[in-house]
Amino acid sequence: TSVLAPAPLFPSVAYSIDLYPITQYSFGKKAPFPVKDLTVEDRLNRMRRNYKKCGMRRTVEGILLLQNHGFPHLLLLQLGPKFFTLPGGRLRPGESEEAGLKRKLASKLDPDDESHHNDYEIGEVMSTWWRPTFESPLFPYIPPHVSKPKECKKIYIVQLDESGRFAVAQNTNLVAVPLFELYTDVKRFGPILSTLPIALARYNLHINR
Amino acid sequence: TSVLAPAPLFPSVAYSIDLYPITQYSFGKKAPFPVKDLTVEDRLNRMRRNYKKCGMRRTVEGILLLQNHGFPHLLLLQLGPKFFTLPGGRLRPGESEEAGLKRKLASKLDPDDESHHNDYEIGEVMSTWWRPTFESPLFPYIPPHVSKPKECKKIYIVQLDESGRFAVAQNTNLVAVPLFELYTDVKRFGPILSTLPIALARYNLHINR
Ligand SMILES: [Zn+2]
Ligand SMILES: [Zn+2]
Ligand SMILES: [Zn+2]
Ligand SMILES: [Zn+2]
Repeated sequence: TSVLAPAPLFPSVAYSIDLYPITQYSFGKKAPFPVKDLTVEDRLNRMRRNYKKCGMRRTVEGILLLQNHGFPHLLLLQLGPKFFTLPGGRLRPGESEEAGLKRKLASKLDPDDESHHNDYEIGEVMSTWWRPTFESPLFPYIPPHVSKPKECKKIYIVQLDESGRFAVAQNTNLVAVPLFELYTDVKRFGPILSTLPIALARYNLHINR
Repeated sequence: TSVLAPAPLFPSVAYSIDLYPITQYSFGKKAPFPVKDLTVEDRLNRMRRNYKKCGMRRTVEGILLLQNHGFPHLLLLQLGPKFFTLPGGRLRPGESEEAGLKRKLASKLDPDDESHHNDYEIGEVMSTWWRPTFESPLFPYIPPHVSKPKECKKIYIVQLDESGRFAVAQNTNLVAVPLFELYTDVKRFGPILSTLPIALARYNLHINR
């Protein structure tokens, strides 16, 4: 049959990400962030206020990878025994995703002392998640009958420099979790983090020794 | 700091896939395929024989999308009340992934009578899965200490023509499953199919009415 619609263009290349040894990075601490919400209700109220003011919450997060014992590891912020997040955060009104993610990565991961800034090269969006109501979890699509989602979260792949210095807030830990641990522990890491290895499998993860 | 390693190149565009109404396709049946294995043991033995002869099993499968009630649906082959697969299959030795996937899609989905061939435009790899041993499930990475995986499965995104005629083997059904049903029913669809919506979320799924 003849093709009436113009064919979409796909690249046939596999994108490469360079993973450098964990030993080429240093990990420290810096002043803690002020706590924004003491309760889940506080947090929901803050989301509602912000939604009224600025519309849908736009958040961006980064996938930062390095290698340890030759296996890909993902950098996660640990805020409690069972609470892990990707580094990132909320965009300001009008702020671009790339600029906002760079700002958030610097504020969450760079040392305070201005002596070093890490290079974060922002790559492509790896997955997108939607929150239909303030109370609901995120879904990888806008569910049917939802016309005004309350949050859109985009997860970007980020190329790290071959070395770096990280410092995270006193009350958090920066941990490097191997992909096989993420994938096999849904209970610990939840539906978004535990499935990241699936989306990462399209890339050529290049292990640098 | 200065960047010593050359920066990888990422495209900043979101790839578009066109989804056409399910009503523009017809769905029929054709002669059943011969049954290759009667038991799980038969299947494992066949895999072992093939591995000795041809090395790692290479399989390719296609994501074929259309729209129904304005929502993206995925085409799946249903082989039993709880057994769903993507259309696709095993590559011949030396066969390219693109040619092999086109051959498999035609053999599984095209009518027998040569009156119509569907156009399957093969896009990029959406995810890659590895089977470390004959008996194990698939993982979205090669687990540590596995040097010779027994199977590598690549899942490609496929652009369907705006209309088409499908015919599947007598003993199978072709079903169109909405993405939200896949994602919310891990028990029914398993870890590979139920997480497809996550990887699909990077694409611009363009609903054509
Ligand atoms: Zn490289
Ligand atoms: Zn480790
Ligand atoms: Zn389109
Ligand atoms: Zn439907």
